[in-house]
Amino acid sequence: MLAQTVLRFQRRGARAHIRHLLKKQHPADVAKMLMELPVPLRGEMILLAGSPDMQADVLSELDAEVAGRIISMLEPEAVVIRIIEGMSSDDAAALLRTFPEDERARLLGLMRNEESEDVEGLLTYRTDTAGAMMTPDIFSLQEGVTVEEAIRALRDAREAREAETVFYIFVVNALEQLVGVISLRQLVVSNPKARLEDIMEREVVTVDAETDREEVARVVEHYNFIAVPVVDEQRHLLGIITVDDVLDVLREEATEDLLRMSGASDLPQRGTSILARLPGRITWMLTATLVAWVISWIVYGWAPVQGNSSDFVSPLSWLVLLPMLIVISITMAMQAAAVAIGAVTLETIPTDAIWPYFVRETGAGITMAVACGGLSTLGLWVMLGLSVAWPLGLSVASGAAVASVLGSGIPLLLHRFHRDPTELGGVIVMCFAAISSSLCGLLVAHGLQ
Amino acid sequence: MLAQTVLRFQRRGARAHIRHLLKKQHPADVAKMLMELPVPLRGEMILLAGSPDMQADVLSELDAEVAGRIISMLEPEAVVIRIIEGMSSDDAAALLRTFPEDERARLLGLMRNEESEDVEGLLTYRTDTAGAMMTPDIFSLQEGVTVEEAIRALRDAREAREAETVFYIFVVNALEQLVGVISLRQLVVSNPKARLEDIMEREVVTVDAETDREEVARVVEHYNFIAVPVVDEQRHLLGIITVDDVLDVLREEATEDLLRMSGASDLPQRGTSILARLPGRITWMLTATLVAWVISWIVYGWAPVQGNSSDFVSPLSWLVLLPMLIVISITMAMQAAAVAIGAVTLETIPTDAIWPYFVRETGAGITMAVACGGLSTLGLWVMLGLSVAWPLGLSVASGAAVASVLGSGIPLLLHRFHRDPTELGGVIVMCFAAISSSLCGLLVAHGLQ
Repeated sequence: MLAQTVLRFQRRGARAHIRHLLKKQHPADVAKMLMELPVPLRGEMILLAGSPDMQADVLSELDAEVAGRIISMLEPEAVVIRIIEGMSSDDAAALLRTFPEDERARLLGLMRNEESEDVEGLLTYRTDTAGAMMTPDIFSLQEGVTVEEAIRALRDAREAREAETVFYIFVVNALEQLVGVISLRQLVVSNPKARLEDIMEREVVTVDAETDREEVARVVEHYNFIAVPVVDEQRHLLGIITVDDVLDVLREEATEDLLRMSGASDLPQRGTSILARLPGRITWMLTATLVAWVISWIVYGWAPVQGNSSDFVSPLSWLVLLPMLIVISITMAMQAAAVAIGAVTLETIPTDAIWPYFVRETGAGITMAVACGGLSTLGLWVMLGLSVAWPLGLSVASGAAVASVLGSGIPLLLHRFHRDPTELGGVIVMCFAAISSSLCGLLVAHGLQ
Repeated sequence: MLAQTVLRFQRRGARAHIRHLLKKQHPADVAKMLMELPVPLRGEMILLAGSPDMQADVLSELDAEVAGRIISMLEPEAVVIRIIEGMSSDDAAALLRTFPEDERARLLGLMRNEESEDVEGLLTYRTDTAGAMMTPDIFSLQEGVTVEEAIRALRDAREAREAETVFYIFVVNALEQLVGVISLRQLVVSNPKARLEDIMEREVVTVDAETDREEVARVVEHYNFIAVPVVDEQRHLLGIITVDDVLDVLREEATEDLLRMSGASDLPQRGTSILARLPGRITWMLTATLVAWVISWIVYGWAPVQGNSSDFVSPLSWLVLLPMLIVISITMAMQAAAVAIGAVTLETIPTDAIWPYFVRETGAGITMAVACGGLSTLGLWVMLGLSVAWPLGLSVASGAAVASVLGSGIPLLLHRFHRDPTELGGVIVMCFAAISSSLCGLLVAHGLQ
C-alpha cells in the first residue's frame, strides 16, 4: 500500500510528498516498501527517506545483498559513505562483504577512521561465526564505577545511537576483561552509591568469537537471552549479539533443513548465483540417478520378458506396478522422515523415549501402507483384473511399509546417537527407501508367482 | 554430563549432593538435564531443584506437555499447587491446557485466587492466538507519573519476580488504555521531574488478543522488538509477548513448512497421538496413490507388449526406464521446490524479480537434467546397449527438465500472487512433476521409435 502511494507520487514527480510520507514511517516499513518497488527506483527512493541516519537504518533492515545493490546505485560517493558510516558496524560489515575485494577496500578507505576500524575488525571473522554477527558497539563500564556514575555515563552516551539497544550493562576490569553484567532494571533500583562490582551478576554466559552462529542461536534460545556477550580467550569483551540477529539465524537454519531434506545441499548464500550453487545440487541429483540405476538393475535382473496380461508376472503388469511402487514408497518415506524430524526438532521426543515413538510411528506407517495397497489393488483391478491386481497391491503395500520404517527410523537413529536428524539429508533417506521398497515389493511379486 | 552426575548420586541415594549440585544451575540447564533422565525419575529430581520458585522456573523451561506429565507425578497436592503458582501465568496456562477439563478445574480451584484468575483469563483464548501466548504480568504506569516516581515504583516491584523481564514501561491513561511506551534506558536518562506523558513514545505498535501467533512473530521480527503489547479493541492493555516466545513460534512454523513439503499435513500438536494425526497424513498418501495410478494408466496405454531387448520400445527397456524416469524426476522437483521456497522465505527474491529468478533456475534445472540424462545413458548402455540407451537417456533428461520447471514454477507462482509458497504442499508439487515428467519422458521414448 505504501509502495503504491510512493509509486503514484513518483510518477507525478511529487518528490516533496514522498519525503513527507516517508519521514513518518518506521525504517522497517520503508525497507519493506523498497522491496516492493522496481529495482531501478530503489536508489532514488531511499535518498528521500529522511536523514542519512534514517537511510542507514532502512538499509540495515534490508538483506545485505539487496542493500549492497542499492548502495552501488547511489551517488555522489560522499552520500554513500555518509550512509554506510551511519549504519551499525555489524550491518556495515555485512553490506561490505557483498562487494568485490578492491571496491570494499576503496570504500573503507573513504570512511572516517573510527568507523572503518570497527568494520575492518568484523570483516576478519569468518562468515557464520559469532564474530561476524556481533556488534562491537557495546556499553561497558569499569567494576569500580558507582550506580550514580553509571547512570550519568548512560545519559552522556545519549547521542550515541548505537547505545539505543542497551538493556544490560557489561562490567569489565582494568584489563577490559568481562567480569559481570547488570540489567538496566537492577541498576535503576540499586543504591546510587553502590559500586557495580557489588551488585553485578558474576556468572555471565558468553560465546567465543569463533563460535558457530547456530551454536550462538542455541545459547540465546536456551537461556531466553536478549543479548549474549562475545569474548576472546582472555575474556576481553569484543561485542554483543542481540536476539534479533538470532531470529534471522533461526529462519535461515530452518530453510537449511528444508533444503537438506530435498537434497538441495546448502543454504543459498546471499549473493551467490544459482550457477555457483549448482555443484552441491548436482551431486545429489547424480546420486539419485545412480540409485535409480540400481533399482533398474534389480528390475532388469528379475524382469519377466514374456507372459500375457492376465498373469501378474508379465511385462505389462510389472510396467504398471513400477510407477505405483516407486511413487508411493518415496512419498511415504519423505512423510515419515519429516514427521520424525519435526518431532525431534520441537523436542517432543526425549532421547530415552525414541523406541516407543518409533513403534507407534511404524504402526501408523503400516496402517497407511495397507490403505495405499488397497487403493492400488482397486486401481489395478480396473486395468488388469483382480487375479493380477491383488498380488501387485500386496507388493505396493509391503514396499510402502518398508519405506515408512526406514523414513522414520533413519532420523530417529541419528537423534538417538546425538546427531542432527537431518544430517544424512532427504535424498539419502529417499534412496534407501526407494531401493529397499523396490527390492521388497518385487520380491513379494516374484515370490507369489 | 549434568544428567550423568545426577544419576550417579541418585543410585547412591545421595540426595543432599543432588540438591547442592542443582542449586547452582540455571533453570534452563536443569530442564535440559531432566529431559535426559528416565521419565519415572523426573518428578523426584525436580523436587531437589532448589526452592518451589526455582522448580517453577525449571518447569517453565520445559515443553508444556512434558511439564504436565511431571506435575501429575508429584505429591502432595500442596507442593504441586505451590509450584504452579510460582510459574508465570502464561506458562501455567500452557501447562494446564495439557490436563483434562475436570482435572484442570480442580487444580485451578486449589490455587490462590489472584493467581488462578490470571490463568483462567488466559485459558479463554484460543491456542495459537496472541492471547494464549501473552503474559498478563505487565509493568504499567499512569501517564501523569513522574520519572522519579516511576523509578520508585520499579524499586517497590523488586520482589515481584515477574517484573524481572522489564525492558519497557507501558504507559496507560485513567481508563487503563495504552497511550505510550518508554524504554528503561530513556527513563534512566530523563529528568527525574518529567512526566511520563512528556517523554514517552506515543506511536506504539500493538497486536490484538485474537491475532494469530504467526502474525505476532512477523511483527516482532519485522520491527526487531524485544516485546510487543497485546490490547483489546478499546486499546486496554491485556499483556505482553516477549521475543523468547516468538523464537518458539518461529521454530514450530519452520517445522510446519517441512511437514507440508513432505505431505505430512499438520504440525504435530503437542499432546496429540500419532493415530490422531493419521487422517491428515493418510489423505496425502491416498492422493499420491491416485497419482501413481494415473501414471500407471499412461504406461498401460502406451506400453510396448512385445519387442526384443535391442529395441528401445520393448517391454524390457521400458521396465528399466521407468524407475530412472520417476526417481530422478521426483528428486528434481523436490529439490527445485525447496530451493525456490528457501529463497522466498529468506526474502532474497523481491516479488518483481521472480521472472529472472525463474529463468536462471530453469537454466540450472536443464543443466542438471542433461547431466542426469547423460549418466542414465551410461548406466543403460551397460544393460541394454547404446542404441537403446540413448533414446531412454533422452527420455530421462526431458522428464527431469519438466520436473525442474514445475518444481520451481509452482512455489514461485504462488509467491507472485502473494500466497504462501508452501501452501499447495510438497506432495502436490511432486504429483504434478511425476505425472508431467512421465508423460513427457514416455512421449519422447515413443516419438523416437
